[in-house]
Amino acid sequence: MSERRQVSSPDGSWKPIAHYINCQFEQYFRDESGLDRKNIQDGRVHCCLYFLSPFGHGLRPLDISFLRAIHDKVNIVPVIAKADCLTPTEVQHKKEKIRQELQENGINIYEFPECDSDEDEEFKVQDAEMKRSIPFAVIGSTQVVRELKDKVFRGRQYPWGTVEVENSAHCDFLKLREMLIQTHMQDLKDVTHEVHYENYRAQCIQSLTRTGARDRSSRA
Amino acid sequence: MSERRQVSSPDGSWKPIAHYINCQFEQYFRDESGLDRKNIQDGRVHCCLYFLSPFGHGLRPLDISFLRAIHDKVNIVPVIAKADCLTPTEVQHKKEKIRQELQENGINIYEFPECDSDEDEEFKVQDAEMKRSIPFAVIGSTQVVRELKDKVFRGRQYPWGTVEVENSAHCDFLKLREMLIQTHMQDLKDVTHEVHYENYRAQCIQSLTRTGARDRSSRA
Repeated sequence: MSERRQVSSPDGSWKPIAHYINCQFEQYFRDESGLDRKNIQDGRVHCCLYFLSPFGHGLRPLDISFLRAIHDKVNIVPVIAKADCLTPTEVQHKKEKIRQELQENGINIYEFPECDSDEDEEFKVQDAEMKRSIPFAVIGSTQVVRELKDKVFRGRQYPWGTVEVENSAHCDFLKLREMLIQTHMQDLKDVTHEVHYENYRAQCIQSLTRTGARDRSSRA
Repeated sequence: MSERRQVSSPDGSWKPIAHYINCQFEQYFRDESGLDRKNIQDGRVHCCLYFLSPFGHGLRPLDISFLRAIHDKVNIVPVIAKADCLTPTEVQHKKEKIRQELQENGINIYEFPECDSDEDEEFKVQDAEMKRSIPFAVIGSTQVVRELKDKVFRGRQYPWGTVEVENSAHCDFLKLREMLIQTHMQDLKDVTHEVHYENYRAQCIQSLTRTGARDRSSRA
């Protein structure tokens, strides 16, 4: 199996990541099977932000092999990096292209849960907008810009204008932050626990059972 | 020799380019040695614009192997592509880094000739500024933007402002165009003819002489 994977991704850049995720599952599995189950430190990876290049056309082969290698271990939230080099129209095209290619290549990214029917209208609209924004196009900055006396913000100063990181007309940073630490944090944890970790646990138990069966048959 | 080159650039992406340049030299060499020397169609490549990625830190290994493979055949003018994702400070850092790495790796790009001492001051200042601008940071656009009634220009419309391709405060496109088709076109042709083509011709004659000597010695 490991050899087959190596062929599809000759660079193997996903290996340390997959290894780290597995190690966290392993630790949790050990803690969960131990005596003191009340105070488990949960180190499992609840989300993987995958940064896609803003250039090029859709996904690169490296992206595809990387995402395929980890999409059944962790919640993937794809983002378009350095989106200040794309105009709004280009961002839209790029998002559609990426969504389409993710689907064509059978890559499972984190799926936003359906809205409860009893949620209020405003929340529903906001939620639908968030789903439409995937992959989030983000812009980062290490610079704090001071415009006027009382306007201080993270941004990038170009000769033709200043990009504001926390301006939803400029990029999806606010949406991403809101999703990660406000609206969907608990769901990310739930999916990790109920889907990804359960898959890992099932594999573990299966391989333990097989080892046990082999041991018994060799003793018989 | 060709095998050694292959090792340094496993992708071999420079090969079709180098082949094309050589073919043009070969054609010119043949025409020049023929009877009708007055009406030679000069198809030699007088300049190669090499586009560097605006991301990453300096030159990639691919850039180095590519440039090394063709720098003794053609005038290389390096440019930073899609420079609208870099702030002025970042552009400056990137230019310095690239100039330094080109030098460290022994890559010969097109060298701007020294200004004549009798040129007027304005030209000297302009020339010095052009030399300082290498590699030119350029922005392209297929979109024509109409701002106000009489202002029509090529540009890119971002929510935070509009990039004007032909505005020297925004990028070096004007400098590059001026250099290529106004101030340095003849010098590019001269360097091609006097340096690159002469090198090619010398190699040709050398190999012809060697073949002749072998033929004579095998007949003797």
